[in-house]
Amino acid sequence: MSIKSINVRNQFRGTISEIIEGPVLSEIDVSTPSGIVTSVITTRSVKDLELAVGSEVIAFVKSTEVSLAKL
Amino acid sequence: MSIKSINVRNQFRGTISEIIEGPVLSEIDVSTPSGIVTSVITTRSVKDLELAVGSEVIAFVKSTEVSLAKL
Amino acid sequence: MSIKSINVRNQFRGTISEIIEGPVLSEIDVSTPSGIVTSVITTRSVKDLELAVGSEVIAFVKSTEVSLAKL
Amino acid sequence: MSIKSINVRNQFRGTISEIIEGPVLSEIDVSTPSGIVTSVITTRSVKDLELAVGSEVIAFVKSTEVSLAKL
Amino acid sequence: MSIKSINVRNQFRGTISEIIEGPVLSEIDVSTPSGIVTSVITTRSVKDLELAVGSEVIAFVKSTEVSLAKL
Amino acid sequence: MSIKSINVRNQFRGTISEIIEGPVLSEIDVSTPSGIVTSVITTRSVKDLELAVGSEVIAFVKSTEVSLAKL
Repeated sequence: MSIKSINVRNQFRGTISEIIEGPVLSEIDVSTPSGIVTSVITTRSVKDLELAVGSEVIAFVKSTEVSLAKL
Repeated sequence: MSIKSINVRNQFRGTISEIIEGPVLSEIDVSTPSGIVTSVITTRSVKDLELAVGSEVIAFVKSTEVSLAKL
Repeated sequence: MSIKSINVRNQFRGTISEIIEGPVLSEIDVSTPSGIVTSVITTRSVKDLELAVGSEVIAFVKSTEVSLAKL
Repeated sequence: MSIKSINVRNQFRGTISEIIEGPVLSEIDVSTPSGIVTSVITTRSVKDLELAVGSEVIAFVKSTEVSLAKL
Repeated sequence: MSIKSINVRNQFRGTISEIIEGPVLSEIDVSTPSGIVTSVITTRSVKDLELAVGSEVIAFVKSTEVSLAKL
Repeated sequence: MSIKSINVRNQFRGTISEIIEGPVLSEIDVSTPSGIVTSVITTRSVKDLELAVGSEVIAFVKSTEVSLAKL
Protein backbone atom coordinates (compact mmCIF):
# COMPACT_ATOMS: atom_id res chain seq x y z
CA MET A 1 0.00 0.00 0.00
CA SER A 2 1.38 3.39 -0.97
CA ILE A 3 0.17 6.56 0.66
CA LYS A 4 -0.16 9.48 -1.71
CA SER A 5 -0.27 12.30 0.76
CA ILE A 6 -1.01 13.05 4.37
CA ASN A 7 -2.87 15.98 5.84
CA VAL A 8 -0.04 17.09 8.01
CA ARG A 9 1.23 20.55 7.05
CA ASN A 10 4.52 20.41 8.91
CA GLN A 11 6.89 17.95 7.28
CA PHE A 12 10.67 17.84 7.74
CA ARG A 13 12.69 15.56 5.49
CA GLY A 14 15.99 14.30 6.83
CA THR A 15 18.26 11.46 7.84
CA ILE A 16 18.32 9.65 11.17
CA SER A 17 21.45 10.67 13.09
CA GLU A 18 20.83 8.95 16.43
CA ILE A 19 18.50 6.42 18.06
CA ILE A 20 18.19 5.99 21.83
CA GLU A 21 16.28 2.76 22.29
CA GLY A 22 14.22 2.12 25.40
CA PRO A 23 12.09 -0.92 26.29
CA VAL A 24 8.84 0.73 25.14
CA LEU A 25 9.69 4.01 23.43
CA SER A 26 12.71 5.22 21.47
CA GLU A 27 14.01 8.71 20.84
CA ILE A 28 15.09 9.42 17.29
CA ASP A 29 17.07 12.41 16.11
CA VAL A 30 16.48 13.39 12.51
CA SER A 31 19.05 15.63 10.91
CA THR A 32 17.28 18.10 8.60
CA PRO A 33 18.45 21.19 6.68
CA SER A 34 16.95 23.24 9.53
CA GLY A 35 18.58 21.37 12.39
CA ILE A 36 17.77 18.34 14.51
CA VAL A 37 14.12 17.31 14.85
CA THR A 38 13.51 14.83 17.68
CA SER A 39 10.75 12.23 17.60
CA VAL A 40 9.64 9.73 20.24
CA ILE A 41 7.90 6.64 18.83
CA THR A 42 7.39 3.07 20.04
CA THR A 43 10.39 0.78 19.86
CA ARG A 44 8.16 -1.70 18.04
CA SER A 45 7.59 0.87 15.28
CA VAL A 46 11.35 1.44 15.04
CA LYS A 47 11.70 -2.28 14.35
CA ASP A 48 8.66 -2.60 12.07
CA LEU A 49 9.94 0.28 9.92
CA GLU A 50 13.53 -1.04 10.18
CA LEU A 51 14.74 2.43 11.14
CA ALA A 52 18.48 2.84 11.67
CA VAL A 53 21.05 5.60 11.68
CA GLY A 54 21.20 6.79 8.08
CA SER A 55 17.57 5.98 7.19
CA GLU A 56 15.84 8.67 5.13
CA VAL A 57 12.61 9.77 6.81
CA ILE A 58 10.03 12.52 7.02
CA ALA A 59 9.27 13.86 10.48
CA PHE A 60 5.78 15.32 10.63
CA VAL A 61 3.57 17.10 13.14
CA LYS A 62 -0.10 18.10 13.21
CA SER A 63 -0.62 21.88 13.27
CA THR A 64 -2.77 21.56 16.41
CA GLU A 65 0.34 20.26 18.26
CA VAL A 66 2.47 23.32 17.49
CA SER A 67 2.62 25.95 20.25
CA LEU A 68 3.90 29.51 19.91
CA ALA A 69 6.02 31.65 22.21
CA LYS A 70 6.57 35.36 21.70
CA LEU A 71 10.10 36.75 21.92
CA MET B 1 7.54 36.55 34.66
CA SER B 2 10.29 35.44 32.37
CA ILE B 3 10.70 31.82 31.34
CA LYS B 4 14.31 30.69 31.13
CA SER B 5 13.87 27.56 29.11
CA ILE B 6 11.29 24.99 28.13
CA ASN B 7 11.66 21.26 27.85
CA VAL B 8 10.58 21.11 24.25
CA ARG B 9 13.40 19.88 22.02
CA ASN B 10 11.92 21.01 18.71
CA GLN B 11 11.97 24.78 18.44
CA PHE B 12 11.68 26.79 15.23
CA ARG B 13 12.34 30.51 15.37
CA GLY B 14 10.67 32.66 12.74
CA THR B 15 8.33 35.45 11.77
CA ILE B 16 4.56 35.24 11.37
CA SER B 17 3.70 35.45 7.67
CA GLU B 18 -0.05 34.80 7.78
CA ILE B 19 -2.92 34.52 10.25
CA ILE B 20 -6.29 32.96 9.39
CA GLU B 21 -8.58 33.91 12.24
CA GLY B 22 -11.58 31.76 13.15
CA PRO B 23 -14.12 32.29 15.94
CA VAL B 24 -12.38 29.81 18.30
CA LEU B 25 -9.07 28.81 16.73
CA SER B 26 -6.65 30.54 14.38
CA GLU B 27 -4.10 29.14 11.97
CA ILE B 28 -0.74 30.86 11.99
CA ASP B 29 2.01 30.42 9.43
CA VAL B 30 5.50 31.02 10.75
CA SER B 31 8.22 31.63 8.18
CA THR B 32 11.42 29.92 9.38
CA PRO B 33 14.80 29.18 7.74
CA SER B 34 13.47 25.65 7.17
CA GLY B 35 10.21 26.69 5.55
CA ILE B 36 6.71 27.42 6.79
CA VAL B 37 5.68 25.93 10.14
CA THR B 38 1.93 26.03 10.75
CA SER B 39 0.42 26.32 14.22
CA VAL B 40 -3.21 26.24 15.33
CA ILE B 41 -3.88 28.02 18.63
CA THR B 42 -6.92 29.67 20.22
CA THR B 43 -7.95 33.03 18.83
CA ARG B 44 -7.94 34.29 22.42
CA SER B 45 -4.24 33.43 22.69
CA VAL B 46 -3.56 35.28 19.42
CA LYS B 47 -5.09 38.36 21.05
CA ASP B 48 -3.52 37.86 24.49
CA LEU B 49 -0.07 37.57 22.89
CA GLU B 50 -0.88 40.40 20.42
CA LEU B 51 0.35 38.25 17.55
CA ALA B 52 0.30 39.83 14.11
CA VAL B 53 1.96 39.39 10.73
CA GLY B 54 5.60 40.25 11.34
CA SER B 55 5.74 39.16 15.02
CA GLU B 56 8.87 37.24 15.97
CA VAL B 57 7.97 33.90 17.55
CA ILE B 58 9.24 30.44 18.38
CA ALA B 59 7.13 27.54 17.20
CA PHE B 60 7.70 24.47 19.36
CA VAL B 61 6.55 20.88 19.49
CA LYS B 62 6.91 18.06 22.05
CA SER B 63 8.97 15.13 20.78
CA THR B 64 6.11 12.74 21.57
CA GLU B 65 4.00 14.57 18.96
CA VAL B 66 6.44 14.02 16.11
CA SER B 67 5.67 11.04 13.82
CA LEU B 68 8.01 9.46 11.30
CA ALA B 69 7.41 8.14 7.79
CA LYS B 70 9.96 6.11 5.87
CA LEU B 71 10.70 7.06 2.26
CA MET C 1 6.93 11.54 -3.48
CA SER C 2 5.48 8.31 -2.21
CA ILE C 3 5.61 7.35 1.45
CA LYS C 4 6.27 3.67 2.07
CA SER C 5 5.15 3.42 5.64
CA ILE C 6 4.52 5.49 8.73
CA ASN C 7 5.34 4.70 12.30
CA VAL C 8 1.81 5.04 13.51
CA ARG C 9 0.48 1.75 14.88
CA ASN C 10 -3.21 2.65 14.85
CA GLN C 11 -4.51 2.92 11.32
CA PHE C 12 -8.16 2.77 10.27
CA ARG C 13 -8.96 2.53 6.57
CA GLY C 14 -12.30 3.88 5.45
CA THR C 15 -14.36 6.26 3.35
CA ILE C 16 -15.28 9.84 4.20
CA SER C 17 -18.98 10.00 5.08
CA GLU C 18 -19.29 13.62 6.22
CA ILE C 19 -17.30 16.87 6.28
CA ILE C 20 -18.23 19.84 8.48
CA GLU C 21 -16.15 22.72 7.17
CA GLY C 22 -15.16 25.60 9.43
CA PRO C 23 -13.06 28.68 8.57
CA VAL C 24 -9.88 27.18 10.10
CA LEU C 25 -10.56 23.55 10.98
CA SER C 26 -12.89 20.92 9.56
CA GLU C 27 -14.38 17.82 11.16
CA ILE C 28 -14.29 14.71 9.01
CA ASP C 29 -16.19 11.49 9.68
CA VAL C 30 -14.55 8.39 8.26
CA SER C 31 -16.73 5.32 7.95
CA THR C 32 -14.62 2.25 8.80
CA PRO C 33 -15.44 -1.43 9.42
CA SER C 34 -15.23 -0.61 13.13
CA GLY C 35 -17.56 2.39 13.05
CA ILE C 36 -17.13 6.10 12.54
CA VAL C 37 -13.70 7.60 13.26
CA THR C 38 -13.72 11.40 13.56
CA SER C 39 -10.75 13.56 12.61
CA VAL C 40 -10.25 17.32 12.93
CA ILE C 41 -7.72 18.77 10.47
CA THR C 42 -7.15 22.19 8.94
CA THR C 43 -9.56 23.26 6.23
CA ARG C 44 -6.50 24.08 4.11
CA SER C 45 -5.43 20.42 4.33
CA VAL C 46 -8.92 19.32 3.30
CA LYS C 47 -8.48 21.42 0.17
CA ASP C 48 -4.84 20.50 -0.47
CA LEU C 49 -5.71 16.78 -0.29
CA GLU C 50 -8.96 17.38 -2.24
CA LEU C 51 -10.90 15.43 0.38
CA ALA C 52 -14.62 14.97 -0.26
CA VAL C 53 -17.42 12.65 0.80
CA GLY C 54 -16.51 9.30 -0.72
CA SER C 55 -12.71 9.78 -0.63
CA GLU C 56 -10.80 6.69 0.51
CA VAL C 57 -8.51 7.55 3.42
CA ILE C 58 -6.56 6.12 6.31
CA ALA C 59 -7.22 7.68 9.71
CA PHE C 60 -4.22 7.24 12.00
CA VAL C 61 -3.28 8.04 15.57
CA LYS C 62 -0.02 7.91 17.56
CA SER C 63 -0.10 5.37 20.39
CA THR C 64 0.88 8.09 22.88
CA GLU C 65 -2.45 9.84 22.11
CA VAL C 66 -4.61 6.84 23.03
CA SER C 67 -6.05 6.88 26.56
CA LEU C 68 -7.64 3.94 28.38
CA ALA C 69 -10.69 3.72 30.62
CA LYS C 70 -11.55 0.67 32.68
CA LEU C 71 -15.11 -0.66 32.60
CA MET D 1 -17.02 8.74 41.47
CA SER D 2 -18.62 7.52 38.29
CA ILE D 3 -18.13 9.30 34.99
CA LYS D 4 -21.27 9.45 32.85
CA SER D 5 -19.74 10.30 29.54
CA ILE D 6 -16.62 11.79 27.99
CA ASN D 7 -16.34 14.16 25.09
CA VAL D 8 -14.13 11.93 23.07
CA ARG D 9 -15.82 10.84 19.84
CA ASN D 10 -13.48 7.96 19.02
CA GLN D 11 -13.98 5.09 21.44
CA PHE D 12 -12.92 1.49 20.89
CA ARG D 13 -14.10 -1.13 23.35
CA GLY D 14 -11.96 -4.23 23.73
CA THR D 15 -9.86 -6.54 25.85
CA ILE D 16 -6.19 -6.13 26.71
CA SER D 17 -4.17 -8.73 24.79
CA GLU D 18 -0.62 -7.65 25.66
CA ILE D 19 1.27 -5.32 28.02
CA ILE D 20 4.91 -4.34 27.50
CA GLU D 21 5.95 -2.70 30.74
CA GLY D 22 8.74 -0.12 30.84
CA PRO D 23 10.08 1.81 33.83
CA VAL D 24 8.02 4.92 33.04
CA LEU D 25 5.62 4.09 30.23
CA SER D 26 3.91 0.88 29.13
CA GLU D 27 2.55 -0.16 25.76
CA ILE D 28 -0.84 -1.84 25.83
CA ASP D 29 -2.47 -3.71 22.98
CA VAL D 30 -6.25 -3.72 23.06
CA SER D 31 -7.99 -6.31 20.94
CA THR D 32 -11.14 -4.76 19.44
CA PRO D 33 -13.64 -5.93 16.80
CA SER D 34 -11.73 -3.72 14.36
CA GLY D 35 -8.26 -4.99 15.17
CA ILE D 36 -5.55 -4.11 17.63
CA VAL D 37 -5.50 -0.58 19.07
CA THR D 38 -2.21 0.32 20.80
CA SER D 39 -2.02 2.76 23.71
CA VAL D 40 1.00 4.09 25.58
CA ILE D 41 0.24 5.21 29.15
CA THR D 42 2.31 5.58 32.31
CA THR D 43 3.25 2.40 34.13
CA ARG D 44 1.87 4.01 37.28
CA SER D 45 -1.55 4.27 35.61
CA VAL D 46 -1.33 0.60 34.58
CA LYS D 47 -0.90 -0.23 38.26
CA ASP D 48 -3.45 2.29 39.59
CA LEU D 49 -6.10 0.89 37.22
CA GLU D 50 -4.91 -2.69 37.88
CA LEU D 51 -4.77 -3.35 34.14
CA ALA D 52 -3.79 -6.85 33.07
CA VAL D 53 -4.14 -9.10 30.05
CA GLY D 54 -7.87 -9.83 29.81
CA SER D 55 -9.07 -6.52 31.36
CA GLU D 56 -12.02 -4.96 29.57
CA VAL D 57 -11.25 -1.37 28.56
CA ILE D 58 -12.23 1.46 26.27
CA ALA D 59 -9.44 3.00 24.19
CA PHE D 60 -10.26 6.57 23.26
CA VAL D 61 -8.72 9.38 21.25
CA LYS D 62 -9.51 13.08 20.79
CA SER D 63 -10.57 13.97 17.25
CA THR D 64 -7.85 16.63 17.06
CA GLU D 65 -5.26 13.81 17.39
CA VAL D 66 -6.49 11.88 14.35
CA SER D 67 -4.58 12.51 11.10
CA LEU D 68 -5.69 11.54 7.61
CA ALA D 69 -3.77 10.12 4.67
CA LYS D 70 -5.20 9.85 1.17
CA LEU D 71 -4.81 6.58 -0.72
CA MET E 1 -22.36 2.39 30.35
CA SER E 2 -20.50 3.71 33.33
CA ILE E 3 -16.75 4.23 33.27
CA LYS E 4 -15.05 3.33 36.54
CA SER E 5 -11.77 5.08 36.02
CA ILE E 6 -9.52 6.48 33.32
CA ASN E 7 -5.77 6.29 33.02
CA VAL E 8 -5.30 10.00 32.91
CA ARG E 9 -3.31 11.23 35.90
CA ASN E 10 -4.17 14.92 35.57
CA GLN E 11 -7.80 15.54 36.43
CA PHE E 12 -9.33 18.89 37.36
CA ARG E 13 -12.88 18.92 38.66
CA GLY E 14 -14.86 22.10 38.14
CA THR E 15 -17.82 23.95 36.70
CA ILE E 16 -18.15 25.37 33.20
CA SER E 17 -17.96 29.16 33.37
CA GLU E 18 -17.92 30.04 29.66
CA ILE E 19 -18.46 28.43 26.25
CA ILE E 20 -17.35 30.05 22.99
CA GLU E 21 -19.06 28.05 20.28
CA GLY E 22 -17.57 27.80 16.79
CA PRO E 23 -18.90 25.89 13.78
CA VAL E 24 -16.53 22.93 14.34
CA LEU E 25 -14.81 23.41 17.68
CA SER E 26 -15.77 25.15 20.90
CA GLU E 27 -13.65 26.62 23.68
CA ILE E 28 -14.79 25.82 27.18
CA ASP E 29 -13.57 27.46 30.36
CA VAL E 30 -13.79 25.30 33.45
CA SER E 31 -13.57 27.05 36.78
CA THR E 32 -11.58 24.85 39.19
CA PRO E 33 -10.09 25.40 42.65
CA SER E 34 -6.77 25.95 40.88
CA GLY E 35 -8.06 28.53 38.41
CA ILE E 36 -9.50 28.40 34.91
CA VAL E 37 -8.70 25.34 32.80
CA THR E 38 -9.49 25.80 29.10
CA SER E 39 -10.50 22.92 26.84
CA VAL E 40 -11.17 22.87 23.10
CA ILE E 41 -13.49 20.07 21.97
CA THR E 42 -15.82 19.56 19.01
CA THR E 43 -19.05 21.48 19.02
CA ARG E 44 -20.81 18.18 18.35
CA SER E 45 -19.43 16.82 21.62
CA VAL E 46 -20.64 19.93 23.45
CA LYS E 47 -24.13 19.11 22.18
CA ASP E 48 -23.90 15.33 22.70
CA LEU E 49 -22.83 15.87 26.31
CA GLU E 50 -25.36 18.72 26.73
CA LEU E 51 -22.65 20.92 28.22
CA ALA E 52 -23.71 24.38 29.35
CA VAL E 53 -22.52 27.09 31.69
CA GLY E 54 -22.85 25.58 35.16
CA SER E 55 -22.33 21.93 34.13
CA GLU E 56 -20.09 19.97 36.50
CA VAL E 57 -17.21 18.38 34.60
CA ILE E 58 -13.75 16.91 34.94
CA ALA E 59 -11.07 18.35 32.67
CA PHE E 60 -8.30 15.81 32.08
CA VAL E 61 -5.00 15.66 30.25
CA LYS E 62 -2.58 12.83 29.42
CA SER E 63 0.81 13.20 31.12
CA THR E 64 2.57 12.99 27.75
CA GLU E 65 0.83 16.27 26.77
CA VAL E 66 2.19 18.26 29.71
CA SER E 67 5.30 20.36 29.00
CA LEU E 68 7.58 21.96 31.55
CA ALA E 69 9.28 25.34 31.63
CA LYS E 70 11.95 26.29 34.14
CA LEU E 71 11.68 29.60 35.94
CA MET F 1 17.16 34.05 25.03
CA SER F 2 14.23 34.93 27.21
CA ILE F 3 10.70 34.00 26.28
CA LYS F 4 8.15 36.66 27.16
CA SER F 5 5.02 34.60 26.93
CA ILE F 6 3.64 31.43 25.44
CA ASN F 7 0.26 30.82 23.88
CA VAL F 8 -0.67 28.06 26.22
CA ARG F 9 -3.69 28.98 28.33
CA ASN F 10 -3.31 26.27 30.94
CA GLN F 11 -0.31 26.93 33.14
CA PHE F 12 0.33 25.45 36.57
CA ARG F 13 3.20 26.81 38.62
CA GLY F 14 4.76 24.50 41.16
CA THR F 15 7.74 22.62 42.53
CA ILE F 16 9.02 19.24 41.38
CA SER F 17 8.25 16.64 44.06
CA GLU F 18 9.34 13.44 42.29
CA ILE F 19 11.22 12.29 39.19
CA ILE F 20 11.04 8.72 37.86
CA GLU F 21 13.82 8.50 35.31
CA GLY F 22 13.65 6.04 32.42
CA PRO F 23 16.17 5.49 29.62
CA VAL F 24 14.20 7.64 27.13
CA LEU F 25 11.39 9.37 29.02
CA SER F 26 10.97 10.51 32.61
CA GLU F 27 7.86 11.11 34.66
CA ILE F 28 7.85 14.26 36.73
CA ASP F 29 5.41 15.13 39.48
CA VAL F 30 4.88 18.84 40.02
CA SER F 31 3.33 19.87 43.30
CA THR F 32 0.99 22.82 42.66
CA PRO F 33 -1.58 24.63 44.83
CA SER F 34 -4.23 22.53 43.08
CA GLY F 35 -2.56 19.17 43.56
CA ILE F 36 -0.03 17.07 41.69
CA VAL F 37 0.36 17.64 37.95
CA THR F 38 2.26 14.86 36.16
CA SER F 39 4.37 15.46 33.07
CA VAL F 40 6.26 13.00 30.87
CA ILE F 41 9.20 14.51 28.98
CA THR F 42 12.43 13.15 27.52
CA THR F 43 15.18 12.26 29.97
CA ARG F 44 17.51 14.37 27.83
CA SER F 45 15.32 17.42 28.51
CA VAL F 46 15.40 16.66 32.23
CA LYS F 47 19.18 16.86 32.03
CA ASP F 48 19.34 19.84 29.66
CA LEU F 49 17.06 21.84 31.98
CA GLU F 50 18.86 20.44 35.07
CA LEU F 51 15.52 19.55 36.63
CA ALA F 52 15.62 18.04 40.11
CA VAL F 53 13.34 17.59 43.09
CA GLY F 54 12.72 21.12 44.36
CA SER F 55 13.08 22.90 40.99
CA GLU F 56 10.49 25.60 40.40
CA VAL F 57 8.66 25.00 37.11
CA ILE F 58 5.55 25.79 35.14
CA ALA F 59 3.60 22.82 33.80
CA PHE F 60 1.60 23.79 30.74
CA VAL F 61 -0.85 22.17 28.34
CA LYS F 62 -2.43 23.23 25.04
CA SER F 63 -6.20 23.68 25.25
CA THR F 64 -6.69 21.24 22.36
CA GLU F 65 -5.19 18.49 24.59
CA VAL F 66 -7.72 18.94 27.37
CA SER F 67 -10.68 16.51 27.33
CA LEU F 68 -13.89 16.83 29.31
CA ALA F 69 -15.99 14.25 31.14
CA LYS F 70 -19.45 14.95 32.50
CA LEU F 71 -20.27 13.89 36.04
